[in-house]
Amino acid sequence: MRIALIEAAAGRLAGRARVTPLLSSPFLDEIAGRRVWVKAECLQHTGSFKFRGGWSALSALPREARNRGVIAYSSGNHAQGVARAAQIMGVPAVIVMPADAPRLKLANTRAMGAEVVIYDRATDDRDAIGGKIAAERGLTPVMPFDMADVIAGQGTAGLEIAAQAAEAGVARAEVLVPCGGGGLTAGVALALEARAPGLTVRPVEPEGFDDAARSLASGRIERNAATAGSLCDAILTPSPGKLTFPIMSRLCGAGLVVTEDEALRAMEAAFSRLKLVLEPGGAVALAAALYHPAAINGDDVIAVASGGNVDAGMFRMALERYGDGP
Amino acid sequence: MRIALIEAAAGRLAGRARVTPLLSSPFLDEIAGRRVWVKAECLQHTGSFKFRGGWSALSALPREARNRGVIAYSSGNHAQGVARAAQIMGVPAVIVMPADAPRLKLANTRAMGAEVVIYDRATDDRDAIGGKIAAERGLTPVMPFDMADVIAGQGTAGLEIAAQAAEAGVARAEVLVPCGGGGLTAGVALALEARAPGLTVRPVEPEGFDDAARSLASGRIERNAATAGSLCDAILTPSPGKLTFPIMSRLCGAGLVVTEDEALRAMEAAFSRLKLVLEPGGAVALAAALYHPAAINGDDVIAVASGGNVDAGMFRMALERYGDGP
Repeated sequence: MRIALIEAAAGRLAGRARVTPLLSSPFLDEIAGRRVWVKAECLQHTGSFKFRGGWSALSALPREARNRGVIAYSSGNHAQGVARAAQIMGVPAVIVMPADAPRLKLANTRAMGAEVVIYDRATDDRDAIGGKIAAERGLTPVMPFDMADVIAGQGTAGLEIAAQAAEAGVARAEVLVPCGGGGLTAGVALALEARAPGLTVRPVEPEGFDDAARSLASGRIERNAATAGSLCDAILTPSPGKLTFPIMSRLCGAGLVVTEDEALRAMEAAFSRLKLVLEPGGAVALAAALYHPAAINGDDVIAVASGGNVDAGMFRMALERYGDGP
Repeated sequence: MRIALIEAAAGRLAGRARVTPLLSSPFLDEIAGRRVWVKAECLQHTGSFKFRGGWSALSALPREARNRGVIAYSSGNHAQGVARAAQIMGVPAVIVMPADAPRLKLANTRAMGAEVVIYDRATDDRDAIGGKIAAERGLTPVMPFDMADVIAGQGTAGLEIAAQAAEAGVARAEVLVPCGGGGLTAGVALALEARAPGLTVRPVEPEGFDDAARSLASGRIERNAATAGSLCDAILTPSPGKLTFPIMSRLCGAGLVVTEDEALRAMEAAFSRLKLVLEPGGAVALAAALYHPAAINGDDVIAVASGGNVDAGMFRMALERYGDGP
C-alpha cells in the first residue's frame, strides 16, 4: 500500500469526516512525565475513527455495486461507521453483529438505518450467516481492517496527526494507537512514514489480547487464546490482518499492553482533564501514555483516543472506581 | 464596544486558545426536529470558554501591572481561566472562591499555581476580602464579565462560530448561549453582528436564575431572588452586567429558560451522542435546543456548550437518571 491511496481517501473524505482535534492538558503531562497529546477520534462521526474507513470504502466502490448495498461484520464501531456512510449515501447496509455487543452500539447501528443481523458468538458461524445474505442480495463486504480502502480511510487520521504535530512543534514522538486488527495502526503508520517520519507508531492492546505485540515480537502472525472476555470490546480481534501485519511489521515499534483497570483509569482522566468520553478499547493508548511512562521514549507522546461508544453503566463504573465523587 | 476589540483579542489568542469544533449528530437533530450544531467550548483549555477571556485580559495589561499579578472572583471556571493564563505567563494570580465551589474547580485552580482564598457565601464579604488583598499587593482585578477585554476574549468564540457556520452552510440560525453575567453572550453577539448577521444570539438560563431573560423582557437590569441553589453553578450571577446588558439588549433575542432536569438530560445526550463531558451550567443551551423546540425558530440551531468542569459524582447522577445503563 502506498501513501497515494491514503491521499485519495482524504480527498473523498474532505468535508465528510471531521478533522478531529489534538488535545492536551498540563494535568496529563504531569502524570506521564512528558507532554501528552490526544488525537480525539471519539469526536469523529459515529463516535469512532471507523467512519473514516467506512466512508472511504463505500465511496471507492463502483456505483452499481454501491447501489446494491454493503455488508459488514462488527461488534459495533465498524458497524456504525459503515451504517452511517451507507445512510448518507442512501444505499442499503446489512450489519452482522454479535448478540453481546454493547447495547448502545446495537441501537445506534439500527437507528442509522442498517439492517442488523444478530448471531451468537458461541454457537453461530458468523461468516456463513453473512455470506449467505451477501450472495443472495449481491452485497459487497466491507471488511473491518483487511481491505486497502479501509486502511487508507483510517490512515487519514495519520495525515491529520502529522499536520497537527508539526503545528504543535512536535517532530519526534511515539504515536500510540489502540489496536484490534490493525487497520488504524497500519493506516496511521503509512501516513506518518510519508508525512512525519520522526513519528513512530506503536500498537496498544489490553492484557490477554496482545496478538499484535506478540506478532511484532515474533515476526509472524500470532493469535489470541480468547476472543471475548475484556471490557475493550472494540479491539478484541483474534490476530493482525494479512494486509495490516506486513505494514505494522515494517513500520511499527514494539507493542504496549495495558490492564483493563488502566483503561478505566484513563477513561476517568479523559473525563476530568479533556472533557472527552472514551470507551475502554478507545482509552488503551492514553492508558499506556499515562501509566507506562518507562516503556515510552521521548519528550512527547501522542495517544490516539479511537472511540467513545460506551454504555452509561460502564462509564459510571469507571467514574465510581477512579473519579473524585462520593 | 466594537468588533475591532474582538479582532485584537483574537490576535492575542491565536495559537494560545483552541479553535473548538462545531459538532453535530443525527440523533440530536431527531430530538430537536431541526439541525443542531454544538460549539464545544468544554474542549477549550481549562474546560471552559473562560480561558479566552482570561488570556485576553491578562495579555492586554501593561507589562508592569501584569507582572505585579491579578486577582479574580469566581466559583470556578473564570478562576481556572485566569489561573491558567497567569501560570503560562508566569505572573501571580489570587483567586477568591466560595467554599461551596465544586471540588474539581477548587483543586484545579490550586493546581494551576494560583493562590486560592476561600470565603463563605453566607457570612463573608467577598469584595472586602479581595479588595484588601488587591490593595496590599497591587493586583489588577480581572472581572468575570464586566470588562471590555474579557468580553472581547469570549467574543473570539463568536468569530469561530461565524466561520464554522458558514462552512457548514448555515446562514440563518439562533445561537443559544449559556448566560451568567453575559460576557460570553455579549461577546458572541458582537462578533456575529459583524461577521454573521443572520445568526442571532439568545441567552439561556436555569429556572429561578433567569435574570437575563427578565432583563431583556423589561428593558432594564433585573436581579435574581437567590444567588445559589442550582446545579448550574457556573451561571448563577445575580444580574447582567453594566457593560454586557446594553450589548445584549441591542443584539439578543428573547432569553430561554430550562429546568435543572433538562440540563442533566442534555448532559446525557452530549455524553452518548457527542462524546463530550458537559457541566450542568454548560449544558443549558443544548437543553433548550433539544427540549424547547417550539420556542426556537429556523431549520438550524447552534448551541454553545460552554463548559465541562463537573465533579464525577454529579456526572454519574446525570447518567444514572437519564442514561441507558443498569
